[in-house]
Amino acid sequence: MIPSNKTTATTAKAEETRSRILTAALDRFRLRGFDQTTMREIATEAGVALGSAYYYFESKEALVMAFYEHASKEMSVQIEDRLAKAKGLDSRLRAILDVKFEYFAPNRLFLGALSGHAADPKNPLSPFSAETAHIRDLDLQHFQAALEGSRLAVPTDLAPYLPKLLWLYQMGLILFWISDRSPEQTRTRQLRDKSLALLVTGLKLAGFPLLRPLRKKIVDLLMTVEEENHA
Amino acid sequence: MIPSNKTTATTAKAEETRSRILTAALDRFRLRGFDQTTMREIATEAGVALGSAYYYFESKEALVMAFYEHASKEMSVQIEDRLAKAKGLDSRLRAILDVKFEYFAPNRLFLGALSGHAADPKNPLSPFSAETAHIRDLDLQHFQAALEGSRLAVPTDLAPYLPKLLWLYQMGLILFWISDRSPEQTRTRQLRDKSLALLVTGLKLAGFPLLRPLRKKIVDLLMTVEEENHA
Repeated sequence: MIPSNKTTATTAKAEETRSRILTAALDRFRLRGFDQTTMREIATEAGVALGSAYYYFESKEALVMAFYEHASKEMSVQIEDRLAKAKGLDSRLRAILDVKFEYFAPNRLFLGALSGHAADPKNPLSPFSAETAHIRDLDLQHFQAALEGSRLAVPTDLAPYLPKLLWLYQMGLILFWISDRSPEQTRTRQLRDKSLALLVTGLKLAGFPLLRPLRKKIVDLLMTVEEENHA
Repeated sequence: MIPSNKTTATTAKAEETRSRILTAALDRFRLRGFDQTTMREIATEAGVALGSAYYYFESKEALVMAFYEHASKEMSVQIEDRLAKAKGLDSRLRAILDVKFEYFAPNRLFLGALSGHAADPKNPLSPFSAETAHIRDLDLQHFQAALEGSRLAVPTDLAPYLPKLLWLYQMGLILFWISDRSPEQTRTRQLRDKSLALLVTGLKLAGFPLLRPLRKKIVDLLMTVEEENHA
């Protein structure tokens, strides 16, 4: 169906207003912190009435969720782009991490203010919440693609758990980065390089017969933790 | 020097009052939560004047710290006792974990109320804080003893990091247990058993030549993280 000109114009204007409110909110969150910012301030900053701000976003949390979704979509395009050019597992995983860190760099302090919610899966803004599951799933697909596109043969008993483990590893790195006080977060870069090297070496060795008892215990442990998540 | 009878009596009475205030505080913390409890309530519960409560403990935080210290001393005796009887690394590590979980069991919800502070090393009540360093050190000694008393030959490059890693592993288990909602925390028990088996297998394999590249990368990573802690 081809929309009438009027509808298109209305939608475009609504989209522009929505985007302006979101941009204003992120500016305020970065400047004053999430907890301190009020919807009224966001509306003023965006040059809209308070009612209008609430029409587009029912709460500050909805604004953060919109940021997550917007970020997820934008990063997804970039990740697919870079994965198309990267071959080895190391460079494929690095491609995903690079996109994340580059994208999140201007929002490091803002994400830091939210990280208190991270550990509680009942908080909608937690990366572990039901509300962010669709964003997590998209991320899991990227890690799955990173594994599949590399020519590394991962043992079949371990394979189903790897995207989730890599996702958790990435979350750990991001949390470390958020509270990294070293100049220009050089510590995070070191940790990223060394942990990536360790990960890739570990996965290369995972298929060796000597490591079978260790791998079986890891898989057994992962099964237990997964049950917990689904309980 | 033998104290006079008068001094002994005074000290004993002071010790008794102090202990009564601490017991009252823990009761209130368990019942009402740490944040909700006031010093006035604690004083009333202990049957002492508010000024007297403040004479012994300058804040609620000081009470929690006294609980940590008391617990640490009591558990330390029990741990040494059980380590004297346990031989293999598996049973020696299990001995430490058993004492912790048995001791903390009545305080699970209270510890849960404090766990929000756990992630911030600047919070004095965090197990990672400077203020709890002496308690951490005692724990590290137990893990050191658990390793040394077992007949497992750990590679020398990895050995210096193991007590700290085991301590972190134990903290992870305790945090998992605090938020474990399965009946009687059976999930924690499963996780403990499987992760212990994995740990011991991993340490047994750590000396194999095939695993040298992996181990070197682990040690390299640990060095980076340790630097971070000491920066």
